[in-house]
Amino acid sequence: MKLWDKGTPVNKAIEDFTVGKDRELDLYLASHDILGSMAHVTMLESVGLLEKEELPVLLGQLKKLHDEAEAGNFIIEDGVEDVHSQVEFLLTQELGDLGKKIHSGRSRNDQVLLDLKLFTRDAIKEIVESTSSLIEDLLARANETKDILLPGYTHLQVAMPSSFGLWFSAYAESLTDDLELLHSAFKITNQNPLGSAAGYGSSFPLNRQLTTDLLGFNNMNYNVVYAQMGRGKVEKIVSFALANIASTLSKLAYDVCLFMSQNFNFVSLPAEFTTGSSIMPHKKNPDVFELTRARCNKLQGIPAQIGLIINNLPSGYFRDLQMVKEVFLPAFKEMNDCLNIVALAVKNMTVNNNILADEKYNYLFSVEEVNKLVLQGIPFREAYKQVGAQIESNNFTPEKKVNHVHEGSIGNLCLNEILNKYKAVVSEFNFEKIETAKKELLS
Amino acid sequence: MKLWDKGTPVNKAIEDFTVGKDRELDLYLASHDILGSMAHVTMLESVGLLEKEELPVLLGQLKKLHDEAEAGNFIIEDGVEDVHSQVEFLLTQELGDLGKKIHSGRSRNDQVLLDLKLFTRDAIKEIVESTSSLIEDLLARANETKDILLPGYTHLQVAMPSSFGLWFSAYAESLTDDLELLHSAFKITNQNPLGSAAGYGSSFPLNRQLTTDLLGFNNMNYNVVYAQMGRGKVEKIVSFALANIASTLSKLAYDVCLFMSQNFNFVSLPAEFTTGSSIMPHKKNPDVFELTRARCNKLQGIPAQIGLIINNLPSGYFRDLQMVKEVFLPAFKEMNDCLNIVALAVKNMTVNNNILADEKYNYLFSVEEVNKLVLQGIPFREAYKQVGAQIESNNFTPEKKVNHVHEGSIGNLCLNEILNKYKAVVSEFNFEKIETAKKELLS
Amino acid sequence: MKLWDKGTPVNKAIEDFTVGKDRELDLYLASHDILGSMAHVTMLESVGLLEKEELPVLLGQLKKLHDEAEAGNFIIEDGVEDVHSQVEFLLTQELGDLGKKIHSGRSRNDQVLLDLKLFTRDAIKEIVESTSSLIEDLLARANETKDILLPGYTHLQVAMPSSFGLWFSAYAESLTDDLELLHSAFKITNQNPLGSAAGYGSSFPLNRQLTTDLLGFNNMNYNVVYAQMGRGKVEKIVSFALANIASTLSKLAYDVCLFMSQNFNFVSLPAEFTTGSSIMPHKKNPDVFELTRARCNKLQGIPAQIGLIINNLPSGYFRDLQMVKEVFLPAFKEMNDCLNIVALAVKNMTVNNNILADEKYNYLFSVEEVNKLVLQGIPFREAYKQVGAQIESNNFTPEKKVNHVHEGSIGNLCLNEILNKYKAVVSEFNFEKIETAKKELLS
Amino acid sequence: MKLWDKGTPVNKAIEDFTVGKDRELDLYLASHDILGSMAHVTMLESVGLLEKEELPVLLGQLKKLHDEAEAGNFIIEDGVEDVHSQVEFLLTQELGDLGKKIHSGRSRNDQVLLDLKLFTRDAIKEIVESTSSLIEDLLARANETKDILLPGYTHLQVAMPSSFGLWFSAYAESLTDDLELLHSAFKITNQNPLGSAAGYGSSFPLNRQLTTDLLGFNNMNYNVVYAQMGRGKVEKIVSFALANIASTLSKLAYDVCLFMSQNFNFVSLPAEFTTGSSIMPHKKNPDVFELTRARCNKLQGIPAQIGLIINNLPSGYFRDLQMVKEVFLPAFKEMNDCLNIVALAVKNMTVNNNILADEKYNYLFSVEEVNKLVLQGIPFREAYKQVGAQIESNNFTPEKKVNHVHEGSIGNLCLNEILNKYKAVVSEFNFEKIETAKKELLS
Repeated sequence: MKLWDKGTPVNKAIEDFTVGKDRELDLYLASHDILGSMAHVTMLESVGLLEKEELPVLLGQLKKLHDEAEAGNFIIEDGVEDVHSQVEFLLTQELGDLGKKIHSGRSRNDQVLLDLKLFTRDAIKEIVESTSSLIEDLLARANETKDILLPGYTHLQVAMPSSFGLWFSAYAESLTDDLELLHSAFKITNQNPLGSAAGYGSSFPLNRQLTTDLLGFNNMNYNVVYAQMGRGKVEKIVSFALANIASTLSKLAYDVCLFMSQNFNFVSLPAEFTTGSSIMPHKKNPDVFELTRARCNKLQGIPAQIGLIINNLPSGYFRDLQMVKEVFLPAFKEMNDCLNIVALAVKNMTVNNNILADEKYNYLFSVEEVNKLVLQGIPFREAYKQVGAQIESNNFTPEKKVNHVHEGSIGNLCLNEILNKYKAVVSEFNFEKIETAKKELLS
Repeated sequence: MKLWDKGTPVNKAIEDFTVGKDRELDLYLASHDILGSMAHVTMLESVGLLEKEELPVLLGQLKKLHDEAEAGNFIIEDGVEDVHSQVEFLLTQELGDLGKKIHSGRSRNDQVLLDLKLFTRDAIKEIVESTSSLIEDLLARANETKDILLPGYTHLQVAMPSSFGLWFSAYAESLTDDLELLHSAFKITNQNPLGSAAGYGSSFPLNRQLTTDLLGFNNMNYNVVYAQMGRGKVEKIVSFALANIASTLSKLAYDVCLFMSQNFNFVSLPAEFTTGSSIMPHKKNPDVFELTRARCNKLQGIPAQIGLIINNLPSGYFRDLQMVKEVFLPAFKEMNDCLNIVALAVKNMTVNNNILADEKYNYLFSVEEVNKLVLQGIPFREAYKQVGAQIESNNFTPEKKVNHVHEGSIGNLCLNEILNKYKAVVSEFNFEKIETAKKELLS
Repeated sequence: MKLWDKGTPVNKAIEDFTVGKDRELDLYLASHDILGSMAHVTMLESVGLLEKEELPVLLGQLKKLHDEAEAGNFIIEDGVEDVHSQVEFLLTQELGDLGKKIHSGRSRNDQVLLDLKLFTRDAIKEIVESTSSLIEDLLARANETKDILLPGYTHLQVAMPSSFGLWFSAYAESLTDDLELLHSAFKITNQNPLGSAAGYGSSFPLNRQLTTDLLGFNNMNYNVVYAQMGRGKVEKIVSFALANIASTLSKLAYDVCLFMSQNFNFVSLPAEFTTGSSIMPHKKNPDVFELTRARCNKLQGIPAQIGLIINNLPSGYFRDLQMVKEVFLPAFKEMNDCLNIVALAVKNMTVNNNILADEKYNYLFSVEEVNKLVLQGIPFREAYKQVGAQIESNNFTPEKKVNHVHEGSIGNLCLNEILNKYKAVVSEFNFEKIETAKKELLS
Repeated sequence: MKLWDKGTPVNKAIEDFTVGKDRELDLYLASHDILGSMAHVTMLESVGLLEKEELPVLLGQLKKLHDEAEAGNFIIEDGVEDVHSQVEFLLTQELGDLGKKIHSGRSRNDQVLLDLKLFTRDAIKEIVESTSSLIEDLLARANETKDILLPGYTHLQVAMPSSFGLWFSAYAESLTDDLELLHSAFKITNQNPLGSAAGYGSSFPLNRQLTTDLLGFNNMNYNVVYAQMGRGKVEKIVSFALANIASTLSKLAYDVCLFMSQNFNFVSLPAEFTTGSSIMPHKKNPDVFELTRARCNKLQGIPAQIGLIINNLPSGYFRDLQMVKEVFLPAFKEMNDCLNIVALAVKNMTVNNNILADEKYNYLFSVEEVNKLVLQGIPFREAYKQVGAQIESNNFTPEKKVNHVHEGSIGNLCLNEILNKYKAVVSEFNFEKIETAKKELLS
């Protein structure tokens, strides 16, 4: 069943090729599509395009479908092209011609634009929750390990003292900036495209402000040509924001993979978190972090993939955009899986608390010694040369302790400031507004 | 069941995360894995690591499994980690301890390396066949339409006369160069990694030349560290070769999407090859070419995706490589689908044979007029200025015919030369050698 | 001259290779480096690491250098490694040992981090100004052409009526969302990294809040490990925000290149904005838009390039980051050039006001006709079939006018709402705070 | 001076924007452009488009310009648009109208196509030479260090014994496969595009086979539309082949950066090859390998950058292609610099010959011990469990020696086989044919 059926059957090979994975991918969108239709018909009635008594009938039936979709029972039948057709088909089965009226004043183009935005808003919410949870885990571990030193490296050369407190909380602050970027992607998403129809508006007297309010959007994509232009663009921006989180996790995972090597031996995981080798009986491999890294690196490729699909297309809708769904929709689950598994592993990681006893880490303290001389009045460059000479002649015996007091240093981690920074970002999302609107519409 | 089972159960969340889609993806590799094991055990027996009488028993059982896999009946059971474990598990079920012996002298690392290469060789063969078929279709269409002119554009401005013959055969020659690149990717693939074990070789007295011959490889990845390093690298190279074919198809698809626009109206497709709009009853959209373009553009992103996963990893195996399979294995079917659908559409495309009648195409002939003056002895730059002046003053009335005779021009398409070029490339693959080896091993 | 000179001369080939383009690229950073040093020494004095009377001497000399740099007279001499060394060298020439003291409590790592952030803040400001100016130009053109219709396309098939007003203002709204993303990149940039030293803090009692305030930063990168981790990350985020603007311009340019083709003929440029062909005297090519498109497409590749350089590096400084400068620093000028040239061309573009007279555009009105039937009470799907039948039988004669009234449609462009949206975004940058801090520091 | 000058001056801002860096970039092409013109005029005379006596005059003058260009004295004057215009301008200055005749029968489009191919052929030759030299250095180091063991890692966990011989020669074999791919890129490049004019051929009776022979091309891009389509495509393929070499060097560099860390301490560089820290007097940093890695990672981004520029352009020339030169032309020098610096560093690297004495490397021998049991007749899986149990209970005391004999293993590096493989690839390039043709043309 096709909304645009004109009586000519489509060639089977062509149909298979063009439908592609749509039946499967549209399931991500089903409940959102129905919610969008509820707002749309409410608006249609308000401008006289539906009779007063038709509205509750349609809303009731849509509500039922929404419940089915939320419960995971919505399917797109063979021979039905997409989620929009399936919903209209089910409505028409129950309500006859009345079911067909839900398509007035819109096109599948603005319908899928809307679905994608409703889906993305919810999916971002989940990411924000998982990220928040990981940030808090990292800050807790940082607080717990703030006095345990580890070598800090530059160029992978032993450089200066660091601490597990510094290391864990670095990633917490990194994720905080990542949420800042995600918030901006969210704001760009959270604008109503409904009413743009096929990208050139409609001759019906639609009230776009009403659907904007009903769906809890923060704003509207005013220009209807731009609303359509947003397809692909919004997905690219959101996936870049995800890629940024992924980039932080990938770096954390890389660190752990190094730190678990026998050549570092800074941290370890419980045996049941590691995997073995089919030929080397001694192996306890950090596969979970290797796969986190690889998944996160794969996620980082999504913006460029979307770019390849949408770049150098002129304005106006193209079917090419269907392929963006294949790349975009599954990214959220993959991101979430990574966030959750890293949280689990971080909580269960054991840190080695006697690392600096090894004499190869003595050099960590060379700057400390230089600075002591500076505080005695020797110009920095001179002090640097003196300590350098001690090291060259093997006369360097540092005092292995640090007393760093400034903001963000070993002795002053500013965990509270980082916590506050992250909470401030999260509060700006204001997901409550969306939840409230949704509840009202479904009530 | 895990080949490396040491008695500690793995955390369920960790296991789900690390196994990922492996059970599904390893099905691509099943028959290849079994074939590789047949070569491996034959070699083991030859160097005394299997008893003479054990070999036929193992080969017989493996042959049965190979038949199952070829018939699509091989599955990886829940709780079994991957294809290698499943094969060993099935063998051991039938043959007891003898089944376990197939793992001697190798690691899952060189086993999966081998599987990927055997899979890739076969998959490339299919691509070469589909591409060849499309090249021949394009040359046939070129020959058929060689006298039908169409405007040639530069800067999307009407420029000089072109012809459908030129247009169709341009893509045939482009695909020929793409096969050249694919051939090089094939040669790099077609080298035996078996015997590299976990990337550092084995203390068993393996005979790697024997498995190289048994499996019909052209050469060996000698250095065992390099054999392992090839994982990801080979996939990146092969996927770039696919991306190159995809790039040619994408450009062809873009041309068709333009040419089907009412603003060009150069070609059309049968109604059953087009799709409609849910709100615009007049639409006959070239969705099949838009989705070809989009799929091919997505395929073009694969080398960079693989690069993101493998880049900046030092030498030695990492579990990260598992994710390369997710990106790489499904690419061949997607590429093949595109090649086949384009072939179908190209064969069914109608070309408009009266395009140049429209006067906006008069300018196409300005160079012809300049050249006529040059042939009369006027220096080119002077002739250019004269014709330019005619055009500016609206006095330009060209004779609308072309007489191009040089190699590769409208009047001399060199279709045979292109055909020969492509056939020469295809013959170099020498797939027969592989088929012969395979038949012998399975006999 | 090297800050880390230990008496061993560096191999000449190695030195050339490692210095690379740094002398040239560091000129982008010179004035920012000096400004940062002014804040740093002010802080050093406040915590007792400089004598009270030393401060004005250093500030005076730094101010002089800053004036030189602003005037374009700062150079990095042969044999001097980078901007930091050059500044210290010049100071020491004038002030002797006092000059060397400016390096106390910092490393070149946090110094270049700071320079990059100060540079980027200023560079973003310029981009915001050019983008704002283009948005206003586009809105002005939209207002001026709001009654001139042009075909709207989907699938590049004639679809529904659009207008130049819609088309111009679509890009204005797109750039508004782009500024939203840039704002978030700006907020992530606008945090003080100074005091993180080599990425592990300092044993000096630095006051990082003071330098944060002196330099007008909005916040601090608290964690010193994270401050270092921000290198590359910030550049990737900012360059993605630029890439997003570039993506909008690229699409605009693509539209114009189509619209200038003789097959569309919707817009034209003055002769002195076009270029010719060396062999076709009639050509007036839209090179300026082709090169805008190509430059913007190149700019879109920068985030992935930075990703390739920084991905899969563990935490801690690596010299690899030097290469990020090569890719990142020149991007702003290239972006700005594109914004300015598009503004110039948009202002000088002539739009064709009689486009729809051509009968191939009749189909544009099919939805209008469908909707009329719907407003007469016929269900949408039925109306769709009726008009479809008229078209098939060549009985379709539309009334060529549109009456769209909803928000963002042809008759109600909401230019003021778009203007307000953009102004709200720009005001959030609050560049004044930075300017004020800078003036005070330099006074 | 513009070849297409029609009397209307071009707007200055537009001209600056469109010319861009062309004057600078075209210098890469100057000598090749002149050589191409020599072949072209020779052909023009042969088909009667030049008088017999005109040919030697033109050839003589072009030869002089070629000498200038080879000597680095060719410049593109201000106000002259590109290299083609400059050459024609210089000829006309000397020879009057005769100079103008060199443009007959071609367009700047096929001229720049030709220049790029001639440039690329020569540039590839240089890369092949540097790569060959590095391969030989690596094989020499492998031979010299074949008995020095180092730990082999999987998952960065201590895994099995490796050797410096294995490690060095792994990269030699990797580069050999890289040359294989480069050879295919070379074959695709080495086809003559001249005669395709603006992409639609010419009405002149050109003899394309003659220029193919004169310039030593291996073949012809027959189809003129395809010849034009090759622009960008060829550069993308060649730059992917470079990226592949870069990928090998990047991995080598990553290994060295790890191996030089105090946590590994496997190799070291002479002091004059390392660089220091501005605050840590003990540092000897492997900057040269970090910058090799970063440069090579940047080089790996080029194919995607070119893809962004050329993707989704329909067939036919677009000015966008100019931007490809900016990305492509400088890549060869950057690649060569990396190849040369790595060769220098590899030759000067000291390897530590007592690494395995450290007891953390005992586990390396666990597989050896398992295999010994297997050779005693114990099934592999059982042997694996026994050794695993010894390790768990700290009863594992291996004999630290290895006896690997199969092809490509520690005891049988097959350096000669690798040497022969690489020599076979290099000989296929057959650069002599090109050199011979060039000498003849210039004689």
